[in-house]
Amino acid sequence: MLNEHIARAFDRDLEAVQAMIMKMGGLVEAALSDAAKALDTQDESLAEQVRQGDKAIDALEEMINTECARLIAMRAPIATDLRTVLTVMKIASSLERCGDYAKNLAKRALVLNAMTPIPGAAGSIRRMARQVGLLLKDALDAFVSRDAGLAAEVRLRDEEVDQMYNALFREFLTHMMEDTRNISACMHLHFIAKNIERVGDHATTIAEQVIYLTTGALPDEARPKAELAGGDA
Amino acid sequence: MLNEHIARAFDRDLEAVQAMIMKMGGLVEAALSDAAKALDTQDESLAEQVRQGDKAIDALEEMINTECARLIAMRAPIATDLRTVLTVMKIASSLERCGDYAKNLAKRALVLNAMTPIPGAAGSIRRMARQVGLLLKDALDAFVSRDAGLAAEVRLRDEEVDQMYNALFREFLTHMMEDTRNISACMHLHFIAKNIERVGDHATTIAEQVIYLTTGALPDEARPKAELAGGDA
Repeated sequence: MLNEHIARAFDRDLEAVQAMIMKMGGLVEAALSDAAKALDTQDESLAEQVRQGDKAIDALEEMINTECARLIAMRAPIATDLRTVLTVMKIASSLERCGDYAKNLAKRALVLNAMTPIPGAAGSIRRMARQVGLLLKDALDAFVSRDAGLAAEVRLRDEEVDQMYNALFREFLTHMMEDTRNISACMHLHFIAKNIERVGDHATTIAEQVIYLTTGALPDEARPKAELAGGDA
Repeated sequence: MLNEHIARAFDRDLEAVQAMIMKMGGLVEAALSDAAKALDTQDESLAEQVRQGDKAIDALEEMINTECARLIAMRAPIATDLRTVLTVMKIASSLERCGDYAKNLAKRALVLNAMTPIPGAAGSIRRMARQVGLLLKDALDAFVSRDAGLAAEVRLRDEEVDQMYNALFREFLTHMMEDTRNISACMHLHFIAKNIERVGDHATTIAEQVIYLTTGALPDEARPKAELAGGDA
């Protein structure tokens, strides 16, 4: 009876931190989408808003970490419960990084605004950001619903993001070769594309943690990963 | 008496995971140094060795996480003890990332080997890697000895690394402008410099966690950080 009572208290606490994770995920998705929109529409105030908004994302990570530490100290969870709490902390850390990438995109949008635009680039970046935002959303949904099938799907779909990155990388290289005045802008655009690709990697990592949590085994390494043109790890 | 016995068991367990952290740190420092050396001396077998060696670093992170989870479940630490265990997991996660950057450097060294070299670049990269390796070592030493003074010093010294990165960024930009045939090589070199700069950021993060652990407060944000030429977050 007492044990059951404690177990329910743990579940309640866990639900509360999971709600914080979903809120954090929502903020990160919006930041990414707004930053890409700010780049595409040259909207400086939107870019500035994304930069400022990152503080709220960082604060949520702190809150989640504090709450998880409290949960571990108060409820002393073991086995799957403990693993779940540790996974929550890892996801919060991933989301904080993704928030940084969105902030960075916003900063570069402001810089790129002052340069001659590369035709088509901002639109491609925005499409890539949209794709990655969906990936992140699905990874978090898979976590909350402990849906290993959806998680497996996220892992596969990250390959499309890698292919989008590869196509952009080659496009930017061509623009730089054609006219050296494009080099600075293309360096910034390349960094943006690389960082969005990294958000996709974080979504994959979250998906892999969901698979580990639900099946007890890490997926084998045979994920069909497009070799990145930038040659990144 | 019983409590004292349990406390000592916790300290013993903690010392064991700290030893694993130091071992992991040693492997990451060596990987970084070897990868930079492989680039500088065009040593393909050394580069290949670094690439293969990353598996051992990843395996150590897994072991540390498992051990920390076991420690939390068995000893139910609270307050500073719990915070210490969570910090160990964060440091392991940072080191795993740094290992990835070293592996990535090794991969790019192999690619760059087939290109016309950029004069002086590999030497500069190697000096930067050496500087960052020392920073990482000092951050870990500060953690194990709970030395807030050394940790504060690490934070300040990261600025030098940022300045080295800025200088390299401008150098690569110049080479690309001068001759478009340099663009591919400079893109790879720029990524390498950026990743080494990120290892410095991880060393700073570890140092900040040491300050938090020893003083209970996060250092204020007034770290004298050089604005990065690449404009990164």
